[in-house]
Amino acid sequence: MSSNNSNDFKEISPSDFFYRNKDIAGFDNPTRALYTSVRELIENSLDACEQVNILPDLFIKIRKEEDNTFILRVQDNGVGVPLKEIPPAFGKVFYGSKYRICQSRGTFGVGGTMALLYGQITTNKGFRIISSTGGKNLHGLTLRIDIQSNKPIIEKQQIAENKSNWRGTIVEFSLTGNWRNSRNKILDYIRQTAVISPFADITFKDEASQNLENDSKTYRYKRITKQLPVSPKEILPHPYGVDVEIVTREVNRSTQSTLLDFLTSKFHRLGPKTARKFLQYVNFPVTFSPKDLTRKQIVELVRALKKYPNFLPPDAKCLSPIGIDNLKVGVLEILKPERVYTDQRRPSAYSGHPFIVETAIAYGGEIPHSNSFSLYRFANRIPLLFDGGSDLSKKVINEFNWRHYKIPSDAPIAIITHICSTKIPFKTVGKEFIADIPEIRKQIGLSLKENARKIKIYINKRHAEVHRLRRNALLERFLPKIAELSTQLAGESEQPNLDSFIRRD
Amino acid sequence: MSSNNSNDFKEISPSDFFYRNKDIAGFDNPTRALYTSVRELIENSLDACEQVNILPDLFIKIRKEEDNTFILRVQDNGVGVPLKEIPPAFGKVFYGSKYRICQSRGTFGVGGTMALLYGQITTNKGFRIISSTGGKNLHGLTLRIDIQSNKPIIEKQQIAENKSNWRGTIVEFSLTGNWRNSRNKILDYIRQTAVISPFADITFKDEASQNLENDSKTYRYKRITKQLPVSPKEILPHPYGVDVEIVTREVNRSTQSTLLDFLTSKFHRLGPKTARKFLQYVNFPVTFSPKDLTRKQIVELVRALKKYPNFLPPDAKCLSPIGIDNLKVGVLEILKPERVYTDQRRPSAYSGHPFIVETAIAYGGEIPHSNSFSLYRFANRIPLLFDGGSDLSKKVINEFNWRHYKIPSDAPIAIITHICSTKIPFKTVGKEFIADIPEIRKQIGLSLKENARKIKIYINKRHAEVHRLRRNALLERFLPKIAELSTQLAGESEQPNLDSFIRRD
Repeated sequence: MSSNNSNDFKEISPSDFFYRNKDIAGFDNPTRALYTSVRELIENSLDACEQVNILPDLFIKIRKEEDNTFILRVQDNGVGVPLKEIPPAFGKVFYGSKYRICQSRGTFGVGGTMALLYGQITTNKGFRIISSTGGKNLHGLTLRIDIQSNKPIIEKQQIAENKSNWRGTIVEFSLTGNWRNSRNKILDYIRQTAVISPFADITFKDEASQNLENDSKTYRYKRITKQLPVSPKEILPHPYGVDVEIVTREVNRSTQSTLLDFLTSKFHRLGPKTARKFLQYVNFPVTFSPKDLTRKQIVELVRALKKYPNFLPPDAKCLSPIGIDNLKVGVLEILKPERVYTDQRRPSAYSGHPFIVETAIAYGGEIPHSNSFSLYRFANRIPLLFDGGSDLSKKVINEFNWRHYKIPSDAPIAIITHICSTKIPFKTVGKEFIADIPEIRKQIGLSLKENARKIKIYINKRHAEVHRLRRNALLERFLPKIAELSTQLAGESEQPNLDSFIRRD
Repeated sequence: MSSNNSNDFKEISPSDFFYRNKDIAGFDNPTRALYTSVRELIENSLDACEQVNILPDLFIKIRKEEDNTFILRVQDNGVGVPLKEIPPAFGKVFYGSKYRICQSRGTFGVGGTMALLYGQITTNKGFRIISSTGGKNLHGLTLRIDIQSNKPIIEKQQIAENKSNWRGTIVEFSLTGNWRNSRNKILDYIRQTAVISPFADITFKDEASQNLENDSKTYRYKRITKQLPVSPKEILPHPYGVDVEIVTREVNRSTQSTLLDFLTSKFHRLGPKTARKFLQYVNFPVTFSPKDLTRKQIVELVRALKKYPNFLPPDAKCLSPIGIDNLKVGVLEILKPERVYTDQRRPSAYSGHPFIVETAIAYGGEIPHSNSFSLYRFANRIPLLFDGGSDLSKKVINEFNWRHYKIPSDAPIAIITHICSTKIPFKTVGKEFIADIPEIRKQIGLSLKENARKIKIYINKRHAEVHRLRRNALLERFLPKIAELSTQLAGESEQPNLDSFIRRD
């Protein structure tokens, strides 16, 4: 922070910060950047649909523009962006609709704009947004980002009649990338998105592979189920998750004249009865005015809020798990195992953030045999494809006592973990892996146990079945001979019914 | 990015962003937050000294204020901060003196302010800065951060006569933390800082351990050497590292009337001769005016700059490696091995960023035997203590063919790696680990080889020495007897000189 003359000090804008530190947002190199761009735009599109309970129809296209330069287009049928919000929503870092206490794929409000910024700094072209909220008009804008000032620049603005009442958003832009190296990751990402979002219809048109070993190709993941998960709700902050800043902000904009009213209207699951008990515990009169709280008293209040043992846990209604049935159809349809078991834990919480763990274990079928189980990690319905070695799910699986369940380490098993929360504890802005939070660790472990128990029974039954079939095959081969012989020996002309000797249940 | 009504959109400030995402800056929990705070302030202090070639004298104190709340104080004798820069430098995210192409410990310009912000949201207290640039006055300010607007608030401002011409900065603030759990990491951090910065004098006063198992204690790492590494220089961008944004900015503020002048004055190691050849290669007249470049031409220029094979590699003069002698004394003095070998690679570069790898291998002495070698990782003289499993150095060491050097895996060996660069490819804002960059990977491998070769010779010699000593012991035991006997047999009265039979070299 120090320097020998004040001319050395300068301020940079949020755009400039992420431009200078592209790597931490997942834009390390042309391979990774192409992957991250596809991913960020898909996530925004899915969020735009699910926020308002629309079954997502996604259309993604990558077209080669010139060597190492591609045009990426992502179209959704989501809620659309109002005209005046289009420039900042796409052309300004730290501006968006995700800054609420609510489960969503996006959380940092950085990714989408970073993709467009990356396109701009590698091709020097603006990006095109077409959007309609379903009204009479359809808006088309060409934008750029002024990185130094973090402001959108409108290069072109068009308006058209929206005859078909289309609603949704199309993002199209050019960027430098390495398609050859990123293709498999991108295809993997889309495939895994289809697993965790079986209610989405996703079409990916690869027009970039011409001249590579594969030809252009369309990958289509049809909607498997029309059952959309319950849309997540925005919630108030939970007392266990607050700090001085949150309480101070709430105090500053409070209109309540008593602490009792303040607490019941500003915090999650804090009813009048609990509020009265809590105020007694912390020694504040119920009629105390929030505006009269001193700084020191705010600290006291915050510490007590975090410590008081009798608050109700956060309500998981704000969460939108995928659901065991949806998870099952997604896994069955896409991974095509012989058998799958799913489990959803009861809602839990860490530091005031509610979360739900869901896992699945898939066995056999198209799941390959290998030295270790395949792991598919998801968080708020995002597939996590990088830095798996550092992820919490991996740790829990590695430490899990599989031998206890008699599951050999080379069994054809895939494990799917999904964590949904109002706050996923990602360790990086690039959303690669999840931090080791004891409460989440515990729930993953419990969920694995539950599924391991079921798969153990299944594998045992299957072994028993194989054993029985082999035995039957033997019996069926020799029993007729024995019967024939016995019949001859007994002088009977008719053979007995052999079926009663062979168990078929 | 989309939502159903425009009221859902909002902008947040940089402070607010990092406040909401404290975890990605290393402030996950009270243990980590205390560690990160100590570390960020120490790094800023060391930078403040080294930038202007001052041998650092650091004084750090942690005092218990109340349960789980501590007062952290860090004092340096660095360059000091001019009065008008004090509020933004400490109370504004994305404001600082680190936004240059220059090696420094801080790179994101976020950490120090985040520590103060963390203190504020956990204790609701302002933070105190005392600083002087060595002039007549000494300034003391009490500040807060307005997180929602990312602006410093001055709560108190004092001025005093600077009778002793003191120069430096003192930062003092309260924060919630878990000292019991973070103490060992903090002590480790300071110890490793002493290894990599043996020219610094560091005093750490622990006044937080009262009532814990250990008492208050002062840890002192005296200056081991007065040889300060050459101070890093700010450089121009190297052609291989540029993008459209950099070139556009340079064009916009250029005063040069020809491309020839533009190139030679705006880029690192681009002399007139190379510039002429390059312009011929890219088919631009040398007299072309930079201001006339179209967007498309800027893209052509950038791509050619990145591709042209004949630019000189970046000059490592902008780097400040620790140096093999300094590294050696640091390791010897602090880790106390029996033997240490150090190696410094020649400067190299990735994506236009110069870097130098230095490694050391320490053997025996106080280095413990264990299942794997101890690894001490450093980047721009910062010890990296977290997420070692994901770090590049760890990967290279794990893949290294130690058997080829006949070094057993349980040998008492510590490996020290130091990477210095104008741009360390950290994967997180918390600066925990380094990404896998092929060029850096290669240099670490080469450096390990060099040291492994030396340590192999040493270990062999040591084995030979042990063998020789054993042999000598045997000889010394039996030879006199044999000599006596032989003497008797030969009828001589005087024994021969036995020393010639025993090799002692």
